[in-house]
Amino acid sequence: MSVRDLVILGSSSQQHTRKRNHGGYLLRCNGEGLLFDPGEGIQRQFIFADIPPTVVTRIFVSHFHGDHCLGLGSMLMRLNLDKVTHEIHCYYPASGKVYFDRLRYGTIYRENIKVVEHPVEKEGIVEEGENFKIEAAFLDHGVETIAWRLTEPTRRKYDKEKLNALGIKGVAMKNLISNGFLLDGDKKISIEDVSQVEKGDVFVVIMDTRFCEKAIAIAEGATLLLCESTYLEEHKELAYKHHHLTAKEAAFIAKKAGAKKLILTHFSARYLETEAFENEARSIFPETYAAEDLKRFSFDKTHEAVSSSEIS
Amino acid sequence: MSVRDLVILGSSSQQHTRKRNHGGYLLRCNGEGLLFDPGEGIQRQFIFADIPPTVVTRIFVSHFHGDHCLGLGSMLMRLNLDKVTHEIHCYYPASGKVYFDRLRYGTIYRENIKVVEHPVEKEGIVEEGENFKIEAAFLDHGVETIAWRLTEPTRRKYDKEKLNALGIKGVAMKNLISNGFLLDGDKKISIEDVSQVEKGDVFVVIMDTRFCEKAIAIAEGATLLLCESTYLEEHKELAYKHHHLTAKEAAFIAKKAGAKKLILTHFSARYLETEAFENEARSIFPETYAAEDLKRFSFDKTHEAVSSSEIS
Repeated sequence: MSVRDLVILGSSSQQHTRKRNHGGYLLRCNGEGLLFDPGEGIQRQFIFADIPPTVVTRIFVSHFHGDHCLGLGSMLMRLNLDKVTHEIHCYYPASGKVYFDRLRYGTIYRENIKVVEHPVEKEGIVEEGENFKIEAAFLDHGVETIAWRLTEPTRRKYDKEKLNALGIKGVAMKNLISNGFLLDGDKKISIEDVSQVEKGDVFVVIMDTRFCEKAIAIAEGATLLLCESTYLEEHKELAYKHHHLTAKEAAFIAKKAGAKKLILTHFSARYLETEAFENEARSIFPETYAAEDLKRFSFDKTHEAVSSSEIS
Repeated sequence: MSVRDLVILGSSSQQHTRKRNHGGYLLRCNGEGLLFDPGEGIQRQFIFADIPPTVVTRIFVSHFHGDHCLGLGSMLMRLNLDKVTHEIHCYYPASGKVYFDRLRYGTIYRENIKVVEHPVEKEGIVEEGENFKIEAAFLDHGVETIAWRLTEPTRRKYDKEKLNALGIKGVAMKNLISNGFLLDGDKKISIEDVSQVEKGDVFVVIMDTRFCEKAIAIAEGATLLLCESTYLEEHKELAYKHHHLTAKEAAFIAKKAGAKKLILTHFSARYLETEAFENEARSIFPETYAAEDLKRFSFDKTHEAVSSSEIS
């Protein structure tokens, strides 16, 4: 199976620290590399993470504060230098088009790669592709900021053991798929007997925002939720003032949304360590982990069957 | 005496390596911080160097290839965040104004600092200030690229021991300075008896260029010459093709210019180590040192007296 993980390229907010670079998050899944909010220094973080930047197929920018986009130009230029032949799709709030252009064309170079822009003007489904459905929701951060929801398509998963036991392969397999059943003498084998339809897994990124209902809605049932938590609860007034979340609020969003796993990130430079973030959030949502630069979190398939009522 | 040194914030060309960040060079001198060619990741390099970015008073960009300017926006935004009250003077080739603006305004922020732009249109003296005379020369790099020469003003240096021995202080000292002499009974003490006029020291940055006569001219007699040497001599064809220097060429420039010390930098990512650069250059110019990220080179005063013929 191909790699499925979330690589933390950086986990700081606004100001870097010794241990934490400006944010940057790479989801590797379905043969793609989805890069979220590349802050300054992202190009070198790829080196430290031992991952070639050329894996990147899509770049998402939640908003155009520097710590979420200063690495955008650098990434595009690096991909250009590396002569990637695949398209690079870029998603960002449409109101930030002017910043996207400035970052993209901030230095002298001849752009040879194919950059496909997706300025997002309204909430809802942005794109439904083969690998992901991409949805957007506007958050509450003072400037237009988007939370992203990526849903893999439902897929029929065959039980190899059952197929082998029944000797189904080749032409028989093709017939089973196209007709939904096979006749074995006078015995009818239904496709449901040897397979199940599985829900696609869901990855959600919430960054940056005050606590808001939309954050809960977009994170509904997420397999993996990456969420900013700039502050601890003791600084909740600062969080509110600067339109950010506390670890507790992030945990509350995860719990309310019925997410399966929560990764906290975007920590203020005032905190040297992030253990307290985990502890605070776990009191509400136990499956919480603090991001750490260069750490990888698995994005395993949950293999959850779609119930027949959902299929019909 | 206040700090006088050159801090290497990064030493790579085009692509970062594990050991080398994109370039970035801070000259600390006369109470100022002069930052040259801030590449990507510069903001965090200041942290690793244990130097607050707020020391920066001037930023010089030789040209607008990404590895020489991607950190410009980040630096200005950081200084803005840090609410510096002093002016930030920025010097760059005038033809790159559009890139300067894009980098400066690449993200959403309210600019409160005072940025004073000095787009340089022609060679020669750019500015003559209290701390430095700034001169520019256009190099040979395919795109407009400037070598910078910073000369400290000549200064009269008093011999404290002699002053003490003669008991010159207070009002007598003021008279000596304003009149150029003092009368001690019928003995005349000339200002030259207790002081000498010293040449200002010279710092030169040559980055990036093919070998050219102008590089030698701008580096004449430099106390400290920081010069790109992207390649070793074995790759001199590549150096020529990409408008760069080899270590040997940089050494030749230093020798011809009569420089005192040469720092090589801007190494291609193809070289893991830089020892060979030192060795190659030292065969021509012994006082050569390879830059290394976070290393500091002293920029000591040479205390060279201005000869009387030069004064008149």
